[in-house]
Amino acid sequence: MRTSQYLLSTMKETPADAEIISHQLMLRAGMVRRLASGLYTWLPSGLRVLRKVEQIVREEMNKAGAIEVLMPVVQHAELWQESGRWEKMDAELLRFKDRHQRDFVLGPTHEEVITDLVRKEISSYKQLPINLYQIQTKFRDERRPRFGVMRAREFLMKDAYSFHLSQESLQQTYDAMYQAYCNIFTRLGLDFRPVLADTGAIGGSMSHEFHVLAASGEDAIVFSDSSDYAANIEKAEALPPQGTRPAATQAKAEVATPNAKTIDEVSALLKVDASAIAKTLIVYGRKADDKAPQTLVALVLRGDHELNEIKAEKHPLVASPLQFASEDEVQAITGAKPGSVGPVGLTIPVIVDHAAAHLADFVTGANKDGFHFTGVNFDRDITTYQVADLRNVVEGDPSPCGQGKLVIRRGIEVGHIFQLGERYSAAMKAGVLNEEGKHQIMTMGCYGVGVSRIVAAAIEQNHDEYGIKWPVAIAPFQVAIVPMNMHKSVRIQDAAEQLYKELTDAGFEVLFDDRKERPGVMFADMELLGVPYQIIVGERNLDEQKVELKNRLSGEKLMLSLSDVVAQLKSF
Amino acid sequence: MRTSQYLLSTMKETPADAEIISHQLMLRAGMVRRLASGLYTWLPSGLRVLRKVEQIVREEMNKAGAIEVLMPVVQHAELWQESGRWEKMDAELLRFKDRHQRDFVLGPTHEEVITDLVRKEISSYKQLPINLYQIQTKFRDERRPRFGVMRAREFLMKDAYSFHLSQESLQQTYDAMYQAYCNIFTRLGLDFRPVLADTGAIGGSMSHEFHVLAASGEDAIVFSDSSDYAANIEKAEALPPQGTRPAATQAKAEVATPNAKTIDEVSALLKVDASAIAKTLIVYGRKADDKAPQTLVALVLRGDHELNEIKAEKHPLVASPLQFASEDEVQAITGAKPGSVGPVGLTIPVIVDHAAAHLADFVTGANKDGFHFTGVNFDRDITTYQVADLRNVVEGDPSPCGQGKLVIRRGIEVGHIFQLGERYSAAMKAGVLNEEGKHQIMTMGCYGVGVSRIVAAAIEQNHDEYGIKWPVAIAPFQVAIVPMNMHKSVRIQDAAEQLYKELTDAGFEVLFDDRKERPGVMFADMELLGVPYQIIVGERNLDEQKVELKNRLSGEKLMLSLSDVVAQLKSF
Repeated sequence: MRTSQYLLSTMKETPADAEIISHQLMLRAGMVRRLASGLYTWLPSGLRVLRKVEQIVREEMNKAGAIEVLMPVVQHAELWQESGRWEKMDAELLRFKDRHQRDFVLGPTHEEVITDLVRKEISSYKQLPINLYQIQTKFRDERRPRFGVMRAREFLMKDAYSFHLSQESLQQTYDAMYQAYCNIFTRLGLDFRPVLADTGAIGGSMSHEFHVLAASGEDAIVFSDSSDYAANIEKAEALPPQGTRPAATQAKAEVATPNAKTIDEVSALLKVDASAIAKTLIVYGRKADDKAPQTLVALVLRGDHELNEIKAEKHPLVASPLQFASEDEVQAITGAKPGSVGPVGLTIPVIVDHAAAHLADFVTGANKDGFHFTGVNFDRDITTYQVADLRNVVEGDPSPCGQGKLVIRRGIEVGHIFQLGERYSAAMKAGVLNEEGKHQIMTMGCYGVGVSRIVAAAIEQNHDEYGIKWPVAIAPFQVAIVPMNMHKSVRIQDAAEQLYKELTDAGFEVLFDDRKERPGVMFADMELLGVPYQIIVGERNLDEQKVELKNRLSGEKLMLSLSDVVAQLKSF
Repeated sequence: MRTSQYLLSTMKETPADAEIISHQLMLRAGMVRRLASGLYTWLPSGLRVLRKVEQIVREEMNKAGAIEVLMPVVQHAELWQESGRWEKMDAELLRFKDRHQRDFVLGPTHEEVITDLVRKEISSYKQLPINLYQIQTKFRDERRPRFGVMRAREFLMKDAYSFHLSQESLQQTYDAMYQAYCNIFTRLGLDFRPVLADTGAIGGSMSHEFHVLAASGEDAIVFSDSSDYAANIEKAEALPPQGTRPAATQAKAEVATPNAKTIDEVSALLKVDASAIAKTLIVYGRKADDKAPQTLVALVLRGDHELNEIKAEKHPLVASPLQFASEDEVQAITGAKPGSVGPVGLTIPVIVDHAAAHLADFVTGANKDGFHFTGVNFDRDITTYQVADLRNVVEGDPSPCGQGKLVIRRGIEVGHIFQLGERYSAAMKAGVLNEEGKHQIMTMGCYGVGVSRIVAAAIEQNHDEYGIKWPVAIAPFQVAIVPMNMHKSVRIQDAAEQLYKELTDAGFEVLFDDRKERPGVMFADMELLGVPYQIIVGERNLDEQKVELKNRLSGEKLMLSLSDVVAQLKSF
């Protein structure tokens, strides 16, 4: 490709509205352009990368025995009503009416459509297991789309769905998908980790996320420093402290803490560490049915620990999704505003995190505005409570696998595999005749890869101050030819044209920068665009029939004879 | 691919709701399944064909210098308001609101989005011409989706848009696209014709359609039997009859024609040929502005000719889009119901088709229910009228190119190229600095290929009573291996497995039918699916180390040594 006949669209300035580096670089390198909130047009360079990611995903899915199909973007409401998601999903599910006033959605995922297809096409156990996938445009009406294609409303996803008659068969396909995902991210050239994940609202029993490691990642992922254990922090279990709780040594005392509402303020005022303060959060309790009156529950954590909402909402006493009580509701039930609340004397259920339950002589709100208690002790001052795992793990916690301590890093979720079980197949009565000739509901797995998100994640992980450093497998072009002042030198033009022909004939994807631009502009654009190998053709080197080969990833430069260029590039 | 690990999904019965052969065969061969009205899931075999069509289109577009991008399905309303199509388009344009109650559409085409992109990215004449294309999912909310993927609501389209500063440059790209389309349809292995087309509602000056010839085609296309002339019947000019009109010989007379309302009824009653009767259609006249009262116009054609609505609505006196007057409106202006209307004595403008204007002593309605006139003559009985081309050409008409006579065949429109001019660029102020440094609005071309429609059109053109006869270039598999009773014979199994390995290693796409099915079922499925080459492995032939090779397209059968199969197939 010649830049003169291409839409390069690079920008020098960093766009003001791009918050993260991948978004900035994708705009600056001419990869995407914003059409409207969360909607992006892929420019030629971006699309080249996207298609390469897509093709690697496709090849590995095929290799793992999955079969490609293509389902519509637009889906009719009836299927979503049948699965129950029409009511359950919030406004992220974009609903609309067609010209005949029938209800439709823009598909955010395709569990309903594929389950409907399979229940119609598959009738016998002999046709199972089957794993169907598509690489397709999806839409999720995010409340706040951001970070460019990282969290767009319209995006490209690979979604696969497998169907089985036994947990063993599901596990086999799940394992094959796990391996296929490892192959995909390895081939993409990305530093990634599969981690145990929470199965969340989608239901099901077993789940792994695949994260591209990057300091800017939205997710905290947790590793053991001495084993293979890896989990999303949402999922990572915090083990109860070892040993027995220290004995009480202090009497409970009420102290005035005017204007000290946060843990930090109380800690500073009373000169006690946050880890010796118990914080109390009032949340909605789980109701037996919709008509029951709303109850409240108190969650107690150590002041230096964070509530893990996923863990909390799994507790049988706590409403799911988690909802915090309003200031008025807190005041009505405790007698104090949220900044002065504590577990002493509460009449609502109290659930205490394991670590908080290990405290003695601790500080907590006195349920009286502007006052705290010191010297509080469980069993003496708080007699009715439950203990549970409610907090996020922190670095240094013992690994739940029993080996080593936990380390926390940041990741970008780019893949997710689930054992769905019968969540959809039961609701939609998707079954087949089993070996005994009886109708049996199928069990399902689902397996997603965020194809367009991978492009952004790859940049978050691979960039420097000059631009993108594409892994070779997904670079928009493998080689750039940068001739210096070609339009003034026939010799340079001839050499560059000759190289362009040789490299193209040899099967390389070459970007030949034939613009009338200053060398500095051309270098900057090729660095920004992240072409892995750049061949610089200049007068002085041509005196010796040589050109310079620059490796964008390592920064290494190499002088090469013109006649050696193709062989050298092939050897990489 | 082994059928046992594939989703074949063939059906013996013809689905009742499939009206045309391609729809029937796509359902029966397991190519697509209907999700909802006009929405189809592509099953594995269908998707394989779709992707091959897509790839041929992509390669030829790239070769012609077009650059691939990818624009969103979902587009915000503002752009459509800017171009004026938000108001102009009817309910085919699916409009909806997002969670923030902002207006969006599902893109049926992308003129607005690409014009917006180009006006932002291209600022100088040096960057022109440019031709950007995408292969992308589109949505058109058809009032009555039908014929499967032939006229679906969600479909896959290749749409390209070129930008220029001169008509000459536009013509060059238009010619290049014309050639690229010829290459595409030739490579696809389809019998096609490019034809002159009307530019229609999209505006612009020059346009060709590309039709796949098939008896079932929705469009009538017109050829000269002695030249290259080819046009859509909508566009084909009907030349005025040669020579002068015969002189009047009869006096006008009123005859009773009770219950004779149609041309056929009048012709039978009065024993005159339909070609000697003039029919009169009352339509809405064009209004100077919205507030003017509605006028009416009479269109007069020979009884054996059909009105060409496109030609009529281009007439300056006729409303566009064409609208027929109601029975009440006809009666109020003529004094008679539509079956007895004629041009004699009308007070509204009368426009007479060239052929009708050549009649003498003809029959026409008497503007009195149940009566016609005979012996009517222009200029004597009808004094005020205009003459224009209003009718569809018929077979045998002289070609408008001046050479030969017209032949009419049926076609399926699968491609369309347009010279759009400044229709969008002017409305959206898309300009660049020209060589003189002045801002100049760009002129545009647009070029569409119905990728998913091609799959259906290919079947309409290539099938027999057993199923689909895919052109090799787009067949889902090139070769099928059909072993007879493999599960009872190790020898057959070994030979089939060996062939499968050899053919796959040689790069063929092979469907290996390893199901425990009767040979008849397997043969029928492979014929239905239309695999071009089928290798039948049977006991008797194996005695001589031979297999049978059947050509699905020609029906020829060939006995081949096992060791010659790969070489033979490579030689085709």
